[in-house]
Amino acid sequence: MNQTNTQGLDGVIAGETAIASVGKGHGLKYRGYDIYDLAKGASYEEVAYLLHFGKLPYKVNYQFYISTLKDKRLICEGLRHILEQIPATAHPMDVLKTGISFLGCVEPEKSDFSNQNECIERILAALPAILMYWYHYANHGHQISLDSNQKTIAAYFLEKLHRCEPNLEHVEALNSSLILYAEHEFNASTFASRVTASTLSDIYSAITTGIGVLGGPLHGGANEAAMDLITSYNTPEEAKEGIVKKLEANDKIMGFGHRVYKKCDPRNVVIKEIAKALSVGHKEEKLYYISEAIEKTMWDEKKLFPNLDFYSASAYHYMGIPTSFFTPIFVISRVAGWAAHVKEQRANNRLIRPNASYTGPEEKSFTPLSERGE
Amino acid sequence: MNQTNTQGLDGVIAGETAIASVGKGHGLKYRGYDIYDLAKGASYEEVAYLLHFGKLPYKVNYQFYISTLKDKRLICEGLRHILEQIPATAHPMDVLKTGISFLGCVEPEKSDFSNQNECIERILAALPAILMYWYHYANHGHQISLDSNQKTIAAYFLEKLHRCEPNLEHVEALNSSLILYAEHEFNASTFASRVTASTLSDIYSAITTGIGVLGGPLHGGANEAAMDLITSYNTPEEAKEGIVKKLEANDKIMGFGHRVYKKCDPRNVVIKEIAKALSVGHKEEKLYYISEAIEKTMWDEKKLFPNLDFYSASAYHYMGIPTSFFTPIFVISRVAGWAAHVKEQRANNRLIRPNASYTGPEEKSFTPLSERGE
Repeated sequence: MNQTNTQGLDGVIAGETAIASVGKGHGLKYRGYDIYDLAKGASYEEVAYLLHFGKLPYKVNYQFYISTLKDKRLICEGLRHILEQIPATAHPMDVLKTGISFLGCVEPEKSDFSNQNECIERILAALPAILMYWYHYANHGHQISLDSNQKTIAAYFLEKLHRCEPNLEHVEALNSSLILYAEHEFNASTFASRVTASTLSDIYSAITTGIGVLGGPLHGGANEAAMDLITSYNTPEEAKEGIVKKLEANDKIMGFGHRVYKKCDPRNVVIKEIAKALSVGHKEEKLYYISEAIEKTMWDEKKLFPNLDFYSASAYHYMGIPTSFFTPIFVISRVAGWAAHVKEQRANNRLIRPNASYTGPEEKSFTPLSERGE
Repeated sequence: MNQTNTQGLDGVIAGETAIASVGKGHGLKYRGYDIYDLAKGASYEEVAYLLHFGKLPYKVNYQFYISTLKDKRLICEGLRHILEQIPATAHPMDVLKTGISFLGCVEPEKSDFSNQNECIERILAALPAILMYWYHYANHGHQISLDSNQKTIAAYFLEKLHRCEPNLEHVEALNSSLILYAEHEFNASTFASRVTASTLSDIYSAITTGIGVLGGPLHGGANEAAMDLITSYNTPEEAKEGIVKKLEANDKIMGFGHRVYKKCDPRNVVIKEIAKALSVGHKEEKLYYISEAIEKTMWDEKKLFPNLDFYSASAYHYMGIPTSFFTPIFVISRVAGWAAHVKEQRANNRLIRPNASYTGPEEKSFTPLSERGE
């Protein structure tokens, strides 16, 4: 095996999956369904069900699933106490990680994994509640009610964020975005969740792993960095000039290119449409045109295409979502993929334990501290 | 590439390391030093320093390092509150994971990693304190003081566990055990910590990943399973018969064999000596002889050798350490290796993102829920 090629496991096949096909030159599919059709025609909950159970739900399954998730939103007093200890200065990703880790302390998965589906539903439902309870408490001292009649995670998220009935166009947009982010084969966070599952560790550990890995700026953090970039320019012309300068200085521009995709990100067309639709008539409509100018400049100068993160940034901004929530939304979505991969890993498990090429000193003789000098 | 061989990345070289050499037929070395010499002649803190800074400390470095770790043991009121919310029924691994994740909320690493060494020292020092504060509070309602004059982690751990001056033989034994467990190349938890670091996520996330992965029974959980096995027999003869029966029934016997080692585990000779020495005159001396009977039977029947986990179990038991702390001790030790690997990954980073072989359905056409039937 060519040693150089395995750095970062680039191009190395690390296992099998039946959950998503990606980067085969024909778009992205979840269990055979095209991502475009799902993002346009399904709810995030239908997609989570598809990922976890291998098929789309019938109406009766769907109603039951929706109602189960709704019932599992409320969090216990102990968890609320914990969230109240976390200051507003913390990154929401660390809040989610701490909250899910604590849930694993008080509502553990059984060691035979016989309640894995129940735990997965609990985590899916609790994540938005954890985020919103902490957010309002840390920033305004409000102990908000986590109850709601909203049926979907997208609607619940926006209701609890803005504390009012959510705008339906925003709910639909967020729902599509959750679908786009839900699953992406052996990306770093999913792969690390599978490594966690491969020691037969519990689902909460696999999900905290996923959150921790996703938080890095080379992974989930990219959409927050894209927002910072876009808002740093006042006009499309300024953006073009700024990007050219950054490229000359070899600065990394977040939200462009992809390890797996070489020509375009099949998810971009959907999120770009959404960002454009939300921009119309918005007081910051220009952000969309600034984004387009950055996209064009990156293509003209570097032949690099925007990935899902890039237009997600302005889309979320138009929904009034704080930038620090962009990666947490990625968690709220991708948790569906992580959990599906944990189930798949468990169904045909083999410990994931690679080898390393040793490059250090061969042999050194040990001298005790007392003889080692000052 | 042979697809079959990559399941579990068995034998796949996933990167380079200068931290440990393992499984080359000449034992285990940390940065060139033989594990036997280190376990016999160094303190765990010297080894942690060696792993993190690439060389053994001189006396002055060592004194400073010891004193820094001592100063970083105390934990804030917020963290103590959180630990008080975690019931005695929780697994201590989940407690450590939650505690470290919370530390990342209140004492975050800088995004340029310029304080990574300080954060690593903090985590090393805080882990035993987190475990002990929770343990005494959850089980007895005692809010113990975390202050201590003990210089080493081994002594501190035993003092806080038993709440009295620790037995010096036990301190030395635990110190050696911490050294043996400190580092082991690209094992599953370390590899997953590197995947976490490869997205440029923070050190707390990398360590919570490590804890989550280590918790699984196919990894760190093995020493707890070994203890349960050993204590299930009353005599060496009974153990021999019992193991033969288990092998006939194809039961998995924990604490034997190793993915990397094929003939013996070089760490076993040290921990077996320790277990034997601690057994002498102990009221449960027979546990050692039961362990030996299991070892002999496994070799006679299966040509399988004990790994580090097997004799660690009785050694810890002789120190009066509860079985549920065996894997947490593994954390308190292996955190040195995880952190060294995070530093190494960062120094020459490439995102760890493998590919998967897709085995699912090729193309399915989407039907909206409304047309999908009841």
